[in-house]
Amino acid sequence: MKFTVTILGSGAAKPTGERLSSAHVLNVHEHFFLIDCGEGAQISMMKHGIPIQKIDHIFISHLHGDHYFGLIGLLNTMHLLSRKNELHLYCFPELEKIISLQLTTSETQLTFKLKFHFLNNKKSEMIMENKYVSVISFPLKHRIPTCGFRFTEKKRSRNIKREFVLQHKIPVEWFPRILSGEDFIDEHGFIHKNEDIVRIQSVSRSYAYCSDTAFDETIIPAVKDVSMLYHEASFSDEHESVASQKFHSTSRQAAMIAMKANAGTLIIGHFSARYKNAGILTSQAKEIFENTIEAFDGLTVEVDS
Amino acid sequence: MKFTVTILGSGAAKPTGERLSSAHVLNVHEHFFLIDCGEGAQISMMKHGIPIQKIDHIFISHLHGDHYFGLIGLLNTMHLLSRKNELHLYCFPELEKIISLQLTTSETQLTFKLKFHFLNNKKSEMIMENKYVSVISFPLKHRIPTCGFRFTEKKRSRNIKREFVLQHKIPVEWFPRILSGEDFIDEHGFIHKNEDIVRIQSVSRSYAYCSDTAFDETIIPAVKDVSMLYHEASFSDEHESVASQKFHSTSRQAAMIAMKANAGTLIIGHFSARYKNAGILTSQAKEIFENTIEAFDGLTVEVDS
Repeated sequence: MKFTVTILGSGAAKPTGERLSSAHVLNVHEHFFLIDCGEGAQISMMKHGIPIQKIDHIFISHLHGDHYFGLIGLLNTMHLLSRKNELHLYCFPELEKIISLQLTTSETQLTFKLKFHFLNNKKSEMIMENKYVSVISFPLKHRIPTCGFRFTEKKRSRNIKREFVLQHKIPVEWFPRILSGEDFIDEHGFIHKNEDIVRIQSVSRSYAYCSDTAFDETIIPAVKDVSMLYHEASFSDEHESVASQKFHSTSRQAAMIAMKANAGTLIIGHFSARYKNAGILTSQAKEIFENTIEAFDGLTVEVDS
Repeated sequence: MKFTVTILGSGAAKPTGERLSSAHVLNVHEHFFLIDCGEGAQISMMKHGIPIQKIDHIFISHLHGDHYFGLIGLLNTMHLLSRKNELHLYCFPELEKIISLQLTTSETQLTFKLKFHFLNNKKSEMIMENKYVSVISFPLKHRIPTCGFRFTEKKRSRNIKREFVLQHKIPVEWFPRILSGEDFIDEHGFIHKNEDIVRIQSVSRSYAYCSDTAFDETIIPAVKDVSMLYHEASFSDEHESVASQKFHSTSRQAAMIAMKANAGTLIIGHFSARYKNAGILTSQAKEIFENTIEAFDGLTVEVDS
């Protein structure tokens, strides 16, 4: 089953010709989740084959423009495409006012319902759950209220125990019945309870998004053992004090969080426009955490467990 | 002296991978004027070499999102680049509220002054004038208050009359003095009044922007004899009734305005996303007005007198 992330924008506050501002799309079993929505995100989605109308949940980390300026355009396009499905928006409250003012001004009555869910930047909270995924928000340390998000796939694999299969002759039509939870009645009329013959394993994969944030070890419990961690890495070692002043991180600090949290993979991005080439940021991160991927616009990565 | 227009976005309300929403940049003697600012305009400017910080005047025709959703991102980038020069914004009043709310939410205090000039959609008005250009706004017929703009270059060429040059021996150092307005004193001490020996010719070029609008002949006086007319052409003949319902124009209607106004050249754009290829719109316009140019993103055209 699919679990991928596509980076639509790997740049920071000032977009460049090469890097748009922040926007990530998660594809969890063909359900699409948008995390942040910088300017141009919808155009980038069109280029990278993301089905806009299949996005039902949008998560906006904070209200610096490079994380949401593309949202109103995306909503407008969904409207023009006559979207009917409800859209869930997880954000800080001021965004509702901003969107509402823009819609009122253009006399637009959306064709779909927009449901707001407000974030709490004081503590970690479960903010969404369905049968495929659960999402937790947690506070980040930035200049204005900001949350990170952790997406955890809900997947439990059911297999008939190997030793049972070897010992019993199971008619082929019984396999789906057993896997769907039925007890098995053998040729002698003996009932084998489902829980005795089926093994249930949890194989959930997870993705955490931490942007924007200063270096902050208090987030480690929230991202502990995550399969893939995206952590902003706006600056190199050389600009560590600038990073600290602006409540951003260096790539080395991102790597330290990945290491301490025992993440599987680290993706770094949100690179300041001052770096024409992010190679230096990646190499500094890799000194701490080898399994680091440098984000670029259009990158799609499989999230492994 | 330069007078060009660059089309940054030739699409309509729904941007596509090929066509961004509306944004035009006029370069009048290296002074840059931005007309409308759809999403992604700043990124398009970077790609097409438009010097963002040299834009001192921005004109927003109306408050449908495809004409202004890129503005807040552009202002943010100007701010991040530490712009100091005052920026003039010509628009309808609600835009001030929208920008103000977004800046307040992100706790951004711009590094430059933003001066608003509100448009009047009841009558034509001179809204800007400097020594290079004058700008007139005029009402368009759209679903919400909308204005078109006409930019007229102020250029008066001064030449010493050819017959005077042939009759008199003018020392070379006198040429710039005469051209700057001085009377000429000849070798006999005779004073030749400047106005008798200099010919002043007006060679002004002009550009008019009409988007969005239904077909409306009342705009003809405002765009009469314009060197270059940009007129929206959202639809083809086939969708004329849709155009009318939505207060948009067909390309044939755009051409009729160009013809009746005696425009030099017509540019058509704001093509509905339903047309993968705008060729049909261009050929229908050319049946009425041969000198028609089909807009595309990145097109730069010289405005001729």
